[in-house]
Amino acid sequence: MKTSARNIFNGAISALKSGTVNAEVIIALSGGDQLVAVITQESVKTLELTVGTQVIALVKAPWVMLMTEPSGIRLSARNCLAGTVKSVEVGAVNAEVALTLPGGTEITAIITRDSVHELGLKPGVAATAVIKASNVILGVPA
Amino acid sequence: MKTSARNIFNGAISALKSGTVNAEVIIALSGGDQLVAVITQESVKTLELTVGTQVIALVKAPWVMLMTEPSGIRLSARNCLAGTVKSVEVGAVNAEVALTLPGGTEITAIITRDSVHELGLKPGVAATAVIKASNVILGVPA
Amino acid sequence: MKTSARNIFNGAISALKSGTVNAEVIIALSGGDQLVAVITQESVKTLELTVGTQVIALVKAPWVMLMTEPSGIRLSARNCLAGTVKSVEVGAVNAEVALTLPGGTEITAIITRDSVHELGLKPGVAATAVIKASNVILGVPA
Repeated sequence: MKTSARNIFNGAISALKSGTVNAEVIIALSGGDQLVAVITQESVKTLELTVGTQVIALVKAPWVMLMTEPSGIRLSARNCLAGTVKSVEVGAVNAEVALTLPGGTEITAIITRDSVHELGLKPGVAATAVIKASNVILGVPA
Repeated sequence: MKTSARNIFNGAISALKSGTVNAEVIIALSGGDQLVAVITQESVKTLELTVGTQVIALVKAPWVMLMTEPSGIRLSARNCLAGTVKSVEVGAVNAEVALTLPGGTEITAIITRDSVHELGLKPGVAATAVIKASNVILGVPA
Repeated sequence: MKTSARNIFNGAISALKSGTVNAEVIIALSGGDQLVAVITQESVKTLELTVGTQVIALVKAPWVMLMTEPSGIRLSARNCLAGTVKSVEVGAVNAEVALTLPGGTEITAIITRDSVHELGLKPGVAATAVIKASNVILGVPA
């Protein structure tokens, strides 16, 4: 499998909460961080997900928000991963920004060119990647 | 805090419905409009959200769909905000379109360049910003 | 109605599962495929959705992930539509890729330019469009 998702994480399910329609899945990433995904309960059944299952988590770059100076705010987004800007590639409207997390994981975000300027993003700057749990896709070997 | 989200709204929670996994939060915006967010129930608890809590709502520009000639259709998206195009900036593939709402609030959307042409978007044209509740991130002071 | 959503599907609701906050709606598309949407239960009530209701389903292009060589993986994303690349238009950061499904339906995705190269996407190549159910907006006539 190859996907257009710029972000692929590996981990094992550490907790699972089932609702009628959706389920919340917590994944312990290899690097020590954790990632939260909300998927349908039907997928939990179809993929036979349970605590301990090895999964990959996929996140498209436009679904990642970046934040600087995170003190003073708490967000409802379940995934807030603090790292350092590794590279910035600017287009006419959008820009692609890559962060490196302390554990070495890389996260790519597509944000507007204006945001790059307003946040002063350039290699070496501290930034946090924010990902809503509902924007995480999980995969298991077939 | 500074974020790459082009859209930041201020308001107070006016209603809250909790499910097992998710919760629906209705926010009365300062300008008189209302915004609906679906976040995890865990975030409701962690952020101690309740009716009356002052929050900010963050929405990335690619998560905003634009619509013209809205008569004749009703959408499942809970947030449909009618306004007027303020500016259009076109790139090779995408375009950034800013709307002004009647109350003065500005909303920015990233849509394809083709859509700008098909919808005839230019300053002064009436357009509606459509945002799914699951794409709204809430924040409270730390 | 005209929208900036590059993807519009027509179909009838074939199944509906209601939770407290969200509901899962399964749509039988005209072309024979099926599409799954997760919307709020409030929208199910407001739009008076029930089995048999004719709906349109809207999906913005940045919410579509593309995948090649799909064997070996099962994803939590409920919508995986296999087709063939029809066209690729590349910008500085992003690219717009159109797929044709076997039934003739077209699907447009915005992915990064880097992904186009890594997946070797060009007209004629087999690719699968992956769409999370929570990123599908439904509409009914007013």
